[in-house]
Amino acid sequence: MCEFQVKATRKLQVIDITPRIREIVARDGLEEGLCCVFVPHATAAVAINENADPQIGEDLQEALAKAVPQGIWRHDRIDNNAAAHIKAAILGSSETAPVTRGQLLLGTWQSIMLLEFDGPRERRVVVQIG
Amino acid sequence: MCEFQVKATRKLQVIDITPRIREIVARDGLEEGLCCVFVPHATAAVAINENADPQIGEDLQEALAKAVPQGIWRHDRIDNNAAAHIKAAILGSSETAPVTRGQLLLGTWQSIMLLEFDGPRERRVVVQIG
Amino acid sequence: MCEFQVKATRKLQVIDITPRIREIVARDGLEEGLCCVFVPHATAAVAINENADPQIGEDLQEALAKAVPQGIWRHDRIDNNAAAHIKAAILGSSETAPVTRGQLLLGTWQSIMLLEFDGPRERRVVVQIG
Repeated sequence: MCEFQVKATRKLQVIDITPRIREIVARDGLEEGLCCVFVPHATAAVAINENADPQIGEDLQEALAKAVPQGIWRHDRIDNNAAAHIKAAILGSSETAPVTRGQLLLGTWQSIMLLEFDGPRERRVVVQIG
Repeated sequence: MCEFQVKATRKLQVIDITPRIREIVARDGLEEGLCCVFVPHATAAVAINENADPQIGEDLQEALAKAVPQGIWRHDRIDNNAAAHIKAAILGSSETAPVTRGQLLLGTWQSIMLLEFDGPRERRVVVQIG
Repeated sequence: MCEFQVKATRKLQVIDITPRIREIVARDGLEEGLCCVFVPHATAAVAINENADPQIGEDLQEALAKAVPQGIWRHDRIDNNAAAHIKAAILGSSETAPVTRGQLLLGTWQSIMLLEFDGPRERRVVVQIG
């Protein structure tokens, strides 16, 4: 199990963590298997999509913000971040990708990204290969 | 492979299954690997989020109900539960979390939850560790 | 690692790939473990739900189209398919299901489906069992 940290500096952010995941997979040495990228947080998520145009991440954040507006939920009376929890549950706290020939298998247009929904915060990313 | 059942008593429900998953992982004895929690159903899902405030699960069910209203879909003419299918497909039938040092790795605010979208029903939960 | 191709002939499509996944799992010979079905694409996704009534797939596509309309996103100015990226990120590029007694474990009403959001295109499906 490997772990690293990323710093989200804004409330809503998309952080490309692909280079760090690729490096961890290459260092691990496993030839064939799975790589699970997991965030141990309830207001952040992991997603796989294109980052060659970083506007896609902004569009994703905007689409989620439209579908899940802020400030209208039960949990907002306790801690004003219910929308962040709902978005994180929908996107999911992990992504699993194949490892083959010792490398992470991603498509040409795929990056692995941490989605921050309640920043600024320091976030842990856990990578389990097996 | 391990399996247990949970009983949803309402149409929409969120059931925290974390204690049972933790127990299965601890009993399994695997030191490092992955734990996949899977529901073999098309109108229920598995999600990871906070349950310390159980209102978050209610908020999640409400957000999904707003995005996917009932009774307006093709499948409703056959079996009046299309919204339940759509929500289950969006949330996903499984979650995968890391196992490390023989324990399920979850964040402080993370619980594993079964989401019922078409209860009351008895549901199977399958746990595969490897 | 196994790979096959599927051809989406329409812009929005749902293609049941369960028989091919079952065959790959059976041929692989692993008795107990996980099967990860992954698409190396940023405008297609993998989902598990019912296909006995194929209208459920159409309903899912329609629900996503309502939540994520076309043509209003930043990325549309570069490549007119932002909605396809957003839908793919929400649904996710993989599904993981248990393998037990050498067989893929799916519920009676569950099929594994490739969701095409930007067809017509030829798509790769990667299956990693372990």
